[in-house]
Amino acid sequence: MHFEAALPLQSGASIRGYDVAYETYGQLNAAKSNAVLICHALNASHHVAGVYEGKDKSEGWWDNMIGPGKPVDTNHFFVIGVNNLGSCFGSTGPMHKNPDTGEIYGADFPVVTVEDWVNAQARLLDAMGIEKLVVMGGSLGGMQALSWTLQYPERVTHAVVVASAPNLNAENIAFNEVARRAIATDPDFHGGHFYRHGVVPKRGLRIARMIGHITYLSDDVMNEKFGRLLRDGVDLKYSTQEVEFQIESYLRYQGDKFAEYFDANTYLLITRALDYFDPAKKFGGNLSAALADATAKFLLVSFTTDWRFSPARSREIVRALLDNGRDVSYAEIDAPHGHDAFLLDDSRYMNAVRSYFESIQRSLDDGQ
Amino acid sequence: MHFEAALPLQSGASIRGYDVAYETYGQLNAAKSNAVLICHALNASHHVAGVYEGKDKSEGWWDNMIGPGKPVDTNHFFVIGVNNLGSCFGSTGPMHKNPDTGEIYGADFPVVTVEDWVNAQARLLDAMGIEKLVVMGGSLGGMQALSWTLQYPERVTHAVVVASAPNLNAENIAFNEVARRAIATDPDFHGGHFYRHGVVPKRGLRIARMIGHITYLSDDVMNEKFGRLLRDGVDLKYSTQEVEFQIESYLRYQGDKFAEYFDANTYLLITRALDYFDPAKKFGGNLSAALADATAKFLLVSFTTDWRFSPARSREIVRALLDNGRDVSYAEIDAPHGHDAFLLDDSRYMNAVRSYFESIQRSLDDGQ
Repeated sequence: MHFEAALPLQSGASIRGYDVAYETYGQLNAAKSNAVLICHALNASHHVAGVYEGKDKSEGWWDNMIGPGKPVDTNHFFVIGVNNLGSCFGSTGPMHKNPDTGEIYGADFPVVTVEDWVNAQARLLDAMGIEKLVVMGGSLGGMQALSWTLQYPERVTHAVVVASAPNLNAENIAFNEVARRAIATDPDFHGGHFYRHGVVPKRGLRIARMIGHITYLSDDVMNEKFGRLLRDGVDLKYSTQEVEFQIESYLRYQGDKFAEYFDANTYLLITRALDYFDPAKKFGGNLSAALADATAKFLLVSFTTDWRFSPARSREIVRALLDNGRDVSYAEIDAPHGHDAFLLDDSRYMNAVRSYFESIQRSLDDGQ
Repeated sequence: MHFEAALPLQSGASIRGYDVAYETYGQLNAAKSNAVLICHALNASHHVAGVYEGKDKSEGWWDNMIGPGKPVDTNHFFVIGVNNLGSCFGSTGPMHKNPDTGEIYGADFPVVTVEDWVNAQARLLDAMGIEKLVVMGGSLGGMQALSWTLQYPERVTHAVVVASAPNLNAENIAFNEVARRAIATDPDFHGGHFYRHGVVPKRGLRIARMIGHITYLSDDVMNEKFGRLLRDGVDLKYSTQEVEFQIESYLRYQGDKFAEYFDANTYLLITRALDYFDPAKKFGGNLSAALADATAKFLLVSFTTDWRFSPARSREIVRALLDNGRDVSYAEIDAPHGHDAFLLDDSRYMNAVRSYFESIQRSLDDGQ
């Protein structure tokens, strides 16, 4: 959907003449009361479920969660997947032309925040004539769901916040910063204007992705999947540059793949949006005060081995909501997979989300 | 000390005509029974204690631990600090000439292992006429101490293994690999032969060091020291490339400093030595079987918030030694500082080491 009017951004800048890519699944009911907005995390998109015609391997990133008969059942709900501004998967981003200058944005793409994304999503829903909705997301997507309940409290009936946090801690920011430095110091980055040089800072993107993958997995699952296994048999090569261990091979593969399709400026923008999100900041760090306006009902889910957004961070949100007397459900899932667990099949996790959406559906049926 | 004769290496290669840098503190007694060898970790050297004349800020890296009246009391013990082969602090390394070719080694410096270092250290002690010794080290240094007890069981009376592990786990290897890739893919690395191009792969070294620093600190101490503090006041800059948070400033500073003095090939070699160390490998992963030859008495120390070499890894060693009926003391120190704790002052830690060395001293006095 194209938006001509300028969207004011938190930084004071604005962006105009932009596109927002989205997909929908299921049918919007006559009362327009069954919409579920899905917010994406770092490297995902609006393609949350299903496969594209003729493309077998094109499953949406949350296809195990969303679809007919799935926990978020598109036989009952109208699901909207949205791609955020600054992304490289369809919505306007740094690789597109700035209508004011006719030049590719590059590093001049404005810094966008979680709050800005939510405002852009709200405009999309306005254009679709949807007033009330359920918002759901994992990780950075969970931050957007939480922010919806603060920016548009009257519109959000339920928020589902999975594997998320009320802000990044110092270690989270540190990992983001190393990834950003790897990208920004790659000679092919050209200060963010690499498009005009016909190159891509692949070295930096590879490093960024390798760091990311370490933080997505738990120590346990890494040891189980890779341990100290050598890639080629049992004999050591005694080499510092060749691949020796399976884990090295896995990380290099993930890094190479990512560098082929992801945009370097998008990576900087999205990690910065993560860094900046901190609804408690203007309340002197008091999260309970910050969440006082959130009148939605909440489901929070966390995973025991997630050390990127640990259960303790979800519990902070739960506690702050309870301080405000809100309706909160919380599931802490004992899963081995670390942060990645939010994307994986786990029957307890899937069942928790399924029951929650069934209860939402019952309340819709009851006309509540 | 110069060694002309070739040292056979685990890889099958050998190195000849090399230097080993070392320092000593205190006096070797007549019986030559009071020697303590200190093995260093990643970026340290033979300069373990004291300051150089006229250089105020030149404290050795374990100066809080070693010296007159300190836990390892040089009024009683003869302490030897040794720099490992491949290092960039005095012993022969990749930046030196290969006597066989007359060329700077660069990437052709042979891969050295913990076992190779121990063999080189043993030669140094042979040359000094020292047969029996105490070996002590932290982190990678602890691996050397452990390896001493397996390679030269009859020579080691006591081994002090601090914040170490019987091998790296997949996550440890993963962090090393990302750091290595950052260095090896820096265009200034030139396949390890950057010396002849008059450049230094500083971008890669910076990233490597930033990653290292994240893993040295605990989550808690990072939050306490840096949290979400902004470097310049309270207003956000809304920038992806400028420093915004204190933690970013800290990491960039550490990275810049490191890139000025550390050698890129040394970084690859030392992280590889860490990856390769695994005494249980030839016993099918059975650490108890692997440590059966270790007849030394042991002190192991770990730190509760060390997530790089967690207490669980030290306990594996303790258990394997107990399986063999060895004399083992173990102190698990409740310290907030993460892996870095092994270099910091903590009275319980310092007292544990002090008492252990006092007991060694009493056994020396008793002529045992």
